[in-house]
Amino acid sequence: MSGNIAKIYNMRLADDGSAVVILDQSRLPGETVYLTLSGREELFEAIRSLRVRGAPAIGIFAAYAIYILSAQTKKTDYDGFYAEFLDNKAYLDAARPTAVNLRAMLDRMDAVVHRHAGRPVPEILEALKNEALAIHREDIDMCRAIAEHGLTLVKDGDCILTHCNAGPLATSEYGTGLGTFFLARERGITLRAYCDETRPLLQGARLTTYELTRAGIDCTLICDNMAAAVMKEGKIDAVFVGCDRVAGNGDTANKIGTLGVAILAKHYDIPFYVFCPSSTIDFSCKTGDDIVIEQRDPAEIKEKYFTAPMALPEVNCYNPAFDVTDNSLITAIVTERGICRPPYTESLAAMFKKD
Amino acid sequence: MSGNIAKIYNMRLADDGSAVVILDQSRLPGETVYLTLSGREELFEAIRSLRVRGAPAIGIFAAYAIYILSAQTKKTDYDGFYAEFLDNKAYLDAARPTAVNLRAMLDRMDAVVHRHAGRPVPEILEALKNEALAIHREDIDMCRAIAEHGLTLVKDGDCILTHCNAGPLATSEYGTGLGTFFLARERGITLRAYCDETRPLLQGARLTTYELTRAGIDCTLICDNMAAAVMKEGKIDAVFVGCDRVAGNGDTANKIGTLGVAILAKHYDIPFYVFCPSSTIDFSCKTGDDIVIEQRDPAEIKEKYFTAPMALPEVNCYNPAFDVTDNSLITAIVTERGICRPPYTESLAAMFKKD
Repeated sequence: MSGNIAKIYNMRLADDGSAVVILDQSRLPGETVYLTLSGREELFEAIRSLRVRGAPAIGIFAAYAIYILSAQTKKTDYDGFYAEFLDNKAYLDAARPTAVNLRAMLDRMDAVVHRHAGRPVPEILEALKNEALAIHREDIDMCRAIAEHGLTLVKDGDCILTHCNAGPLATSEYGTGLGTFFLARERGITLRAYCDETRPLLQGARLTTYELTRAGIDCTLICDNMAAAVMKEGKIDAVFVGCDRVAGNGDTANKIGTLGVAILAKHYDIPFYVFCPSSTIDFSCKTGDDIVIEQRDPAEIKEKYFTAPMALPEVNCYNPAFDVTDNSLITAIVTERGICRPPYTESLAAMFKKD
Repeated sequence: MSGNIAKIYNMRLADDGSAVVILDQSRLPGETVYLTLSGREELFEAIRSLRVRGAPAIGIFAAYAIYILSAQTKKTDYDGFYAEFLDNKAYLDAARPTAVNLRAMLDRMDAVVHRHAGRPVPEILEALKNEALAIHREDIDMCRAIAEHGLTLVKDGDCILTHCNAGPLATSEYGTGLGTFFLARERGITLRAYCDETRPLLQGARLTTYELTRAGIDCTLICDNMAAAVMKEGKIDAVFVGCDRVAGNGDTANKIGTLGVAILAKHYDIPFYVFCPSSTIDFSCKTGDDIVIEQRDPAEIKEKYFTAPMALPEVNCYNPAFDVTDNSLITAIVTERGICRPPYTESLAAMFKKD
């Protein structure tokens, strides 16, 4: 089967431009509910309560949100309008203080207003709307380019192991690590997936299998500790993962458990591919040792999602959010510009480093 | 610190011999509740509802149970007594039809009655009581012998990764894979543990950390997918696991995820030890390929323990209960008779095979 597939979308500007429509991710996978948001508090709360999540998606949402709030202004003078804009910007920015894309996209919208200093408000609003749509479009194009490159790495009938979630819910339309699945389906190429559930927050179960199933792609959910068994049984042709940060030498920080999957893939001689928007390549980190790993709340392991605690209160937990996969375990890094192969220090620099 | 530690016990015959006292494992880790059982229905229900679990523990419990029920007889003639015994035996045996130890220990008790054919009932009851206590004592001695051999593989201060549960709750007093921890503590040797939570049924979280914490042993709970990270960080000196069946060539079936841990240990050059009561060595299986793996209910992955399903109803799951670790990944197999090293076909046969 080929042609357009029933893609879920996580976000779009309402037709009349007065609101943003989002899939409430906090209610997945049980309920698929779209919300139409235009109020100041509800836009803030959508970010705060993870109704919209994933760094790129938060950035796109923030751009729509600041446009929508700006369009509600009663000001007709530039100075009054800009003062109100800055107030809304500061308000939205506080919704998730550590979300890099949130601030970055709000700054980008701010620059638009700045470039239109002294111009009539309707003209500024038109420019803001176009910028928000451009931000969204760029992310779609970037994801699609990554997916196109990914498609050169697989063949019809391949079965791919995924870890965590690098799909459209966190980005737009195609996603990064999952984009190849959707593009393949559009082109009549069959790919199947085994999806690690990805403890402790279960993004693989809750989000990845949701996205694939909704798109009609054959996927099977496994616990993280079953990956070795399915590889041993010869079921897996390749591993696809996203990334949170890639060091200059190709060492890759991604969701906890990625390192283990990479070691298993190496053991069974299965290609291991990292899908990487170039914005996540951080040349200021020479190697993975320079990447600081966030430690998270033990309650995520012992209590979250469970009907009762699964261990005694006094039991210690170690809960790193990410691990670093050594570049020697990575077959290739797939970016929107092309595919980098070892040695990564050279190939990444050649593709991305400005002299 | 050395000397006796506050061991939890899972089961004992009441002082007056009229009941068996068990730790209700179905309520762990939240509640530590001991039940005193002597009624026919409640003894049956304790097995059926997993208040007592673990193959060796079920066998010991069944021996106590059939003795307790036999002691309640009003019969004074042998034939009447034996008919009643057989009725109780059939009743208890039906509590968990696939539990090998349950049937085996009931058969052993049956043989005791048979050997005393025609003897007075009080004499038979005395023999049954002694047999049940002997069954329990033999398991304690076997676990202790395994623990003693395990102690030769570690040094003071070592930190050991565990997977699933091979502790005293499933056996008696020392357990198999965990016995070395308790024995070390009695001898003033400090061992620490990282415990894989062991999805989907979380025996590592619910049982292993419970047992270690109650015994005052420093343990840290991790999700299964964090094992690679703690190994990479240099935190792990050895891996200890139990086993469900060992083939003649040393290939080992154990809880799902064991294979993955073994591959990670090999990658990081960390010794990987299997703890194995000789009863689990199955020479009728030449290699691991001869071991049939039980496939379990997808609901264990998607629903069990959770407040709401973690994936859509239509998402497929693959849920093998066990995997097979290749003998090439196993540093040594620790039994009650001694430690076997590769090549296992030779070392296991030399230690256990009757000519």
